[in-house]
Amino acid sequence: MHLEHLAIAVADLDAALRFYRDVLGLTLERVEELPSEGVRVAFLPLGESHIELVQPTQEETGITRWMAKTGGGMHHLCLAVDDIRAALARLSAAGAELITPQPVARPDGTLYAFIHPRSTGGVLIELYQKSQPTSP
Amino acid sequence: MHLEHLAIAVADLDAALRFYRDVLGLTLERVEELPSEGVRVAFLPLGESHIELVQPTQEETGITRWMAKTGGGMHHLCLAVDDIRAALARLSAAGAELITPQPVARPDGTLYAFIHPRSTGGVLIELYQKSQPTSP
Repeated sequence: MHLEHLAIAVADLDAALRFYRDVLGLTLERVEELPSEGVRVAFLPLGESHIELVQPTQEETGITRWMAKTGGGMHHLCLAVDDIRAALARLSAAGAELITPQPVARPDGTLYAFIHPRSTGGVLIELYQKSQPTSP
Repeated sequence: MHLEHLAIAVADLDAALRFYRDVLGLTLERVEELPSEGVRVAFLPLGESHIELVQPTQEETGITRWMAKTGGGMHHLCLAVDDIRAALARLSAAGAELITPQPVARPDGTLYAFIHPRSTGGVLIELYQKSQPTSP
């Protein structure tokens, strides 16, 4: 298991990049617009992991409400696992509260699921499984 | 640069370990009592990084006040750098607000410093430099 990414919610992505890229010296890999999730995301590699700077682009999403309450900052961490279904089954059996009890597939074949902060000491945790190459 | 650790502030370290160690499956490396900082810390390796679960053990510390306000959760991230003085000079020249403008030495020779969340999009960031082996 390793930390796949740490997501930081910011009100102004360009201002955040001036700090994380220009001052702190991280590399900006790419910026993605994700209208279906109502966010614009900058990816900055950091060792085996990366930082995601997430700017909400729509009203009335979960992250917009979270930002209104907190002002922004570290929003969730994402752990890469080998077998997300086994991990979710173990969590569920132990009584952990899952926001997505079944893994959700992204278009690129990766799977993700979220664990509720109530079960984790106050941290929104995403689990993530890379897509498996299919046999020829 | 890599993520040295991610610190999660919790009210009950044993309850947090039941999740992070027993359910999520991370390894508990050690628990340290740090009376000088008013905390008890559990270290759980995670790839090249680790998670620190931090339980306040005294009233009237910065972390106690932060927990009273937020309920706990991700408290700070720590970046390992090769040259902390050069990093602080660059941050300072760029107008970043430093909580510790000069690096602070721990007994083991490591150096650390904190950047204020006002300069980082809402994230308390620690910089950390490993102690250098002295020449024989």
